[in-house]
Amino acid sequence: MTASFIASRPLIDLAQSTRTAARNLAVLSTESKNHAIEAIAQAIETAAPDILAANAADCKAAEEAGIAKALYARLKLDETKLKGAIAGVRDVGKLPDPVGTIQINRELDQGLILKRVSCPLGVLGVIFEARPDAVVQISSLAIKSGNGVILKCGQEAVRSCEALVKAIRQGLAKTEVNPEVVQLLTTREETLALLQLDQYVDLIIPRGSNSFVRFVQENTRIPVLGHAEGICHLYIDQAAEIEKAIAITVDAKTQYPAACNAIETLLVNQEIAANFLPQVATALQERNVELRGDEQTCQIVDIAPATEADWATEYSDLILSIKIVDAVDEAIAHINTYGSRHTDAIVTEDQNAANIFIAQVDAAGVYHNCSTRFADGFRYGFGAEVGISTQKMPPRGPVGLEGLITYKYQITGDGHIAATYSGSNPKSFTHKDLG
Amino acid sequence: MTASFIASRPLIDLAQSTRTAARNLAVLSTESKNHAIEAIAQAIETAAPDILAANAADCKAAEEAGIAKALYARLKLDETKLKGAIAGVRDVGKLPDPVGTIQINRELDQGLILKRVSCPLGVLGVIFEARPDAVVQISSLAIKSGNGVILKCGQEAVRSCEALVKAIRQGLAKTEVNPEVVQLLTTREETLALLQLDQYVDLIIPRGSNSFVRFVQENTRIPVLGHAEGICHLYIDQAAEIEKAIAITVDAKTQYPAACNAIETLLVNQEIAANFLPQVATALQERNVELRGDEQTCQIVDIAPATEADWATEYSDLILSIKIVDAVDEAIAHINTYGSRHTDAIVTEDQNAANIFIAQVDAAGVYHNCSTRFADGFRYGFGAEVGISTQKMPPRGPVGLEGLITYKYQITGDGHIAATYSGSNPKSFTHKDLG
Repeated sequence: MTASFIASRPLIDLAQSTRTAARNLAVLSTESKNHAIEAIAQAIETAAPDILAANAADCKAAEEAGIAKALYARLKLDETKLKGAIAGVRDVGKLPDPVGTIQINRELDQGLILKRVSCPLGVLGVIFEARPDAVVQISSLAIKSGNGVILKCGQEAVRSCEALVKAIRQGLAKTEVNPEVVQLLTTREETLALLQLDQYVDLIIPRGSNSFVRFVQENTRIPVLGHAEGICHLYIDQAAEIEKAIAITVDAKTQYPAACNAIETLLVNQEIAANFLPQVATALQERNVELRGDEQTCQIVDIAPATEADWATEYSDLILSIKIVDAVDEAIAHINTYGSRHTDAIVTEDQNAANIFIAQVDAAGVYHNCSTRFADGFRYGFGAEVGISTQKMPPRGPVGLEGLITYKYQITGDGHIAATYSGSNPKSFTHKDLG
Repeated sequence: MTASFIASRPLIDLAQSTRTAARNLAVLSTESKNHAIEAIAQAIETAAPDILAANAADCKAAEEAGIAKALYARLKLDETKLKGAIAGVRDVGKLPDPVGTIQINRELDQGLILKRVSCPLGVLGVIFEARPDAVVQISSLAIKSGNGVILKCGQEAVRSCEALVKAIRQGLAKTEVNPEVVQLLTTREETLALLQLDQYVDLIIPRGSNSFVRFVQENTRIPVLGHAEGICHLYIDQAAEIEKAIAITVDAKTQYPAACNAIETLLVNQEIAANFLPQVATALQERNVELRGDEQTCQIVDIAPATEADWATEYSDLILSIKIVDAVDEAIAHINTYGSRHTDAIVTEDQNAANIFIAQVDAAGVYHNCSTRFADGFRYGFGAEVGISTQKMPPRGPVGLEGLITYKYQITGDGHIAATYSGSNPKSFTHKDLG
């Protein structure tokens, strides 16, 4: 069940129009789609003065409203950032086309051929907050993957996003792609209405706070790509090399503490706790990390005590909880209880302990002797990242263009009927995979 | 949001126990799993007299309660059917192990290796009605794919299912697989509670009526594999060969009308309607199919008029609605409006019309010159079918063991940290795919 807000008629019309336009986009050649992507890059270049002026107006209004510093930094679009966004569009043009890949090619019987072919999902609903450059990236990824996209931007970025979408649509108007494939919504009411459009929208991608993502997950029947929480763990095994362990801990916590793939809890094997903890505590405290330990940890290093709530908290900040465990099994049990199935790592020179950890930790990413911060579509070499999923079903973990794609089964016959293969004297299928 | 029933404590304990047992099953070798599957087959053979006696008691009670004939036929388990089920278990043993497949093997940088490896989902919740043999098939598929399974059977089949699960668990007790991986629930209250266990159950597979599947979809946050409706279409193009068209229509409607992949609506191009319709009507009426036509159709053949509701109805019976369309575009528009995204087919000798149909019909299966009745995991050569999905995201269409599998990203490094690859002088990733 979902919230009771009913989409207004104009929004349904807009969604239908997007769907129709997307259906034509779905069958365009790679060349046509790449041409449209280049047209977008050029149109944004041409409209740059208007876009920057619109963004300046957004920034002024946001300042007057007393917006938080971090949010302001995301909202602000200067010439350098815009150039980066345009370069990003052209990078999407260079990605391999994910549509039309033949995943299965099988003879079922003579003249009866089954193919499984990748195809676009249809229409994406992408809801994001202050970052206007997200419009540019998402629109180009949508077109590359053959999907329509209904964007909903945060209130602070409306002028910037309107200027960007105007440019994108002007660019598309010169190509085979109908500009109706890219739409922008700007009000909160439209967000609620968008979540109800399960007849027209095939995937929702929310980009925002944990609580916002959870709200979306709980208020739509449309599949949601994303994750509410990133409670990642690092376990330092008794067979860890101390230097590696300290470097990885510092990186995983401090390299970008607001990221979902930063660690929140450090688990330390009791065998090495007395040696490792004082060293890692010093390294972390030098980088202004606030430490909170379980009882055993507090007996070794002088830090604040952790409570039960700490194990279930994503700080997204320079805070780290520390717990001493008996063995790898206890570390795994802790992670599988409190983790969010995002990314968890072990530091050890004991291959057997690493194997157990990798097999038994239930997470999208399970790492050995490296930082959890590698959990990222670009770092994985996907060329793009449309989200990180912590659900169990694929797509799981960092998701590239592959996450915007589904497939169809196609069978071609010559009058073949099922009755031939059933009854008292059934013909056998050949089930022969073709090259 | 979901129904407000809260799982009772014993059920949570049971689910936790299943989960723990499944975690050990997940890492067993193919040999160990196949050995467990053979042990199940043998245990059912040994317990056959008990199982058949339990089923006889179920059947007697069902008869006394005045159960419908079709349901009784599904409930009834004679020696032949049980032998077939045991043979089915051994067939599952022969399927390739879907766990442990390396889907991506990529060097991110020297000594930093990313792998994507297939792994079990965890715990399946399978809710089915009267068919006791489903217990046998599902349990063996779950074990082959490394998953625990919580089964919920229909009220009529409780004695039979209890006897089967008892045998399965006795068989497993002699192997490396903990019998706790297979559980049986028997009450309606437990069904509701099971749907709330999103912390413990990773996938729900409902097998039952359309309305039951829809109830499940609307009352759980757990992903659901299945489909509520199968409104499949056959479009006879103007360039169709009449004989093929008639044979395919008859097969798609009458070969097994209760199947979800049987057609409900026949769309006929106006150019051939006057020639084709009288012939196909005769062929269908000879097989006792009730026909309902749109206005134009009724002018050509003397059949009952169809109403708007007919286009949106899955008859699951010997009834077929018929509509005349101008061209392939109108057929596609009708299918995309009224269809359930299951399976739709075109009959034509015009490759161009076929290409348009295959590209633009939005369904899991799009067929050319063959019956929709081929939409089936066994016919596709998957060796098993765990359900047919009409959702857009993969897995879509008939789903084999692949649907019970997900993947993990594993990275192995040697102290690698993210800071090396960012900042003012970042190292580049190599992103080299390994063999």
